[in-house]
Amino acid sequence: MKKLSILLVVSLMCGIVFAQQALWGVQPLVSPEIHDNNTVTFRLKAPKAVKVQLTGDFIPTQKMDTPYGKYDAPGTVDLVEGKEGIWEYTTPEPLKSELYSYSFLVDGLKINDPSNVYMIRDVVSVTNVFIIGGGRADLYKVNKVPHGTVSRVWYNAPTLGMKRRMTVYTPAGYETSGKRYPVFYLLHGMGGDEEAWIALGRTAQIMDNLIAQGKAKPMIVVMTNGNASQEAAPGESSLGFVSPTMQLPKTMDGSFEMSFSDVVKFADKNYRTIKSKSGRAIAGLSMGGFHSMHVSKLFPDMFDYVGLFSAAIVPNKDVKSPVYEDLEGKLKIQFSKKPALYWIAIGKADFLYKANEDYRKLLDEKGYKYTYYETDEGHIWKNWRIYLSEFTPLLFR
Amino acid sequence: MKKLSILLVVSLMCGIVFAQQALWGVQPLVSPEIHDNNTVTFRLKAPKAVKVQLTGDFIPTQKMDTPYGKYDAPGTVDLVEGKEGIWEYTTPEPLKSELYSYSFLVDGLKINDPSNVYMIRDVVSVTNVFIIGGGRADLYKVNKVPHGTVSRVWYNAPTLGMKRRMTVYTPAGYETSGKRYPVFYLLHGMGGDEEAWIALGRTAQIMDNLIAQGKAKPMIVVMTNGNASQEAAPGESSLGFVSPTMQLPKTMDGSFEMSFSDVVKFADKNYRTIKSKSGRAIAGLSMGGFHSMHVSKLFPDMFDYVGLFSAAIVPNKDVKSPVYEDLEGKLKIQFSKKPALYWIAIGKADFLYKANEDYRKLLDEKGYKYTYYETDEGHIWKNWRIYLSEFTPLLFR
Repeated sequence: MKKLSILLVVSLMCGIVFAQQALWGVQPLVSPEIHDNNTVTFRLKAPKAVKVQLTGDFIPTQKMDTPYGKYDAPGTVDLVEGKEGIWEYTTPEPLKSELYSYSFLVDGLKINDPSNVYMIRDVVSVTNVFIIGGGRADLYKVNKVPHGTVSRVWYNAPTLGMKRRMTVYTPAGYETSGKRYPVFYLLHGMGGDEEAWIALGRTAQIMDNLIAQGKAKPMIVVMTNGNASQEAAPGESSLGFVSPTMQLPKTMDGSFEMSFSDVVKFADKNYRTIKSKSGRAIAGLSMGGFHSMHVSKLFPDMFDYVGLFSAAIVPNKDVKSPVYEDLEGKLKIQFSKKPALYWIAIGKADFLYKANEDYRKLLDEKGYKYTYYETDEGHIWKNWRIYLSEFTPLLFR
Repeated sequence: MKKLSILLVVSLMCGIVFAQQALWGVQPLVSPEIHDNNTVTFRLKAPKAVKVQLTGDFIPTQKMDTPYGKYDAPGTVDLVEGKEGIWEYTTPEPLKSELYSYSFLVDGLKINDPSNVYMIRDVVSVTNVFIIGGGRADLYKVNKVPHGTVSRVWYNAPTLGMKRRMTVYTPAGYETSGKRYPVFYLLHGMGGDEEAWIALGRTAQIMDNLIAQGKAKPMIVVMTNGNASQEAAPGESSLGFVSPTMQLPKTMDGSFEMSFSDVVKFADKNYRTIKSKSGRAIAGLSMGGFHSMHVSKLFPDMFDYVGLFSAAIVPNKDVKSPVYEDLEGKLKIQFSKKPALYWIAIGKADFLYKANEDYRKLLDEKGYKYTYYETDEGHIWKNWRIYLSEFTPLLFR
């Protein structure tokens, strides 16, 4: 292996603030270390800390009292201090195949793992991530398969009077095939934006892998921003590096649904799409499931495939919008046009389980055909990655 | 503003691990807070900490002894503890317009600012960032101007026997204009990858702003991965979430230069490019400047515009590659073809200053025309963003 002299390498690094450790011969810490049996060791060097804990979605939750009742707070486990101030914790059991997130708590202060550069933002929370393979989460990995293109594109939304940002996945081969492709519109939840499905949802990896395995048809995936007051994800608009928030105006007031034809028009104009109902799917998680439900009945000739992932169903009672009026009348029209697939998925522990159960009862009473997919657990990204992986193979058949 | 009930908002957030603070009415900390006079306040809540410090590229460096001599280590300043364990520091002077990075040190442990979700990775180091506007750094902001598209694309590199990932900027209007565009190939330095110019270099913002101001021509910018052993940036290839490293094989051994025609072929096949020397520029920083220098003389009919930003010039003496042989002969051919612009930029404090001075002397002796641009300071991203902002307006005139 040809290398520059150490001095030149050091010099080339002089702009890099914290990399000295590896250079001066100190062994960098490995954390997380995924062992062959899928137990995982976490390490942090903190010689002056009194207590170091780990929190993450693979650790059982604990009940927390809040002004609004009991809340499932993330659980913690203690790391043990070894020599040279290195604290360590190894999971007692192998972890199942999944994408996990975690943070350290050093004397109560939440910090990211300085040995792990991989982090994902979920609203205001940035946590480290790792993947345990060997099962379902192999779909979430970058594998040696043909890769699609992921683009951040600005489109014109005249209905909202704004230019807005979206993320678009085009399948491997799109650029040169000359073919037309179906389009899957994939919507995020409250607090999310056009980055959520790519970052937390691993959509590009899931699509690449399912298409390579022949399980999903090559398709375009359009990931919009469902907050109708927002041009783009935090940090990506002229508002600058603002702090992300859940409490945006115009999220579930009908504005986004009314403006959805702008998105479809842009996709049909700028990409080689199949411009018909049979070439369009829409799905989303939580608020995005709510949007998918209401958009698809607002435009009953637009989508042949509809997916509600842990969907909110009913708008807040204060909301007045023609979008949400005459639910049953609109559903009647939508189902009279026989959508190819109406897919509802939810976890048994989801706080929206009852609302979805009620909605399914309504569909059952009316004799409207849908497919139901139920999982364990609740309103979490683990479930939404599963729903994406299960829903996509059913599209455009 | 229409809102869901608090309980529904809380419930929709139940997957979000650390957002409780804002919900239960505790005022979230603002950090960094940029005041009207461009002083900046940093805050961290750490009631159990004994010492909290701030380090960042706006704080004077300090000399550190290393096995390889004196090293300009990042400086630190102390925060002062106030009530409720909130530590604070305000810069004594306004900061000049710039993109800055920083971290906290809590009892010696480097951490990111939990109040600031904006971070950029530089090799193994992830630091928080903020922008002070009102000057040059306004170019680095997302402004209300038409925005280009940024795509992550995989291309075939038969010369290296790999599929590889690149980042491509296409200017606003590209999708529907039907026009052909010139292409600027923009290369990163050692330890970098196809994400470096977008993340640390703010290339999309600089291009959007310069084009909107009429200062740069609309152009395609192709940001490759210059590590010829690497398919993609860390975390984006089948190697998974590996720890990034400076010490990759095949970075400056001729492999990347030899394979560069793969990149140009892909761009010319997949984008509406101007397929001639007058429609192509190449530039890079540090190792990328080295690559730009050697690629442009290896393919003397390919690029009319060449930029060396703080470039390494001479390969390691152990390296044997035909790419680096007969420097003067190749330069003679390249300059006989009269490149439209050969642009050399470096900072006065750069450790490569002397190498660039020697190279300029050689060009002077031979009477080869070039443009020289000198700045203060050294081998840092601040300079590379400046060089990009200065070089781009000179292209394709």
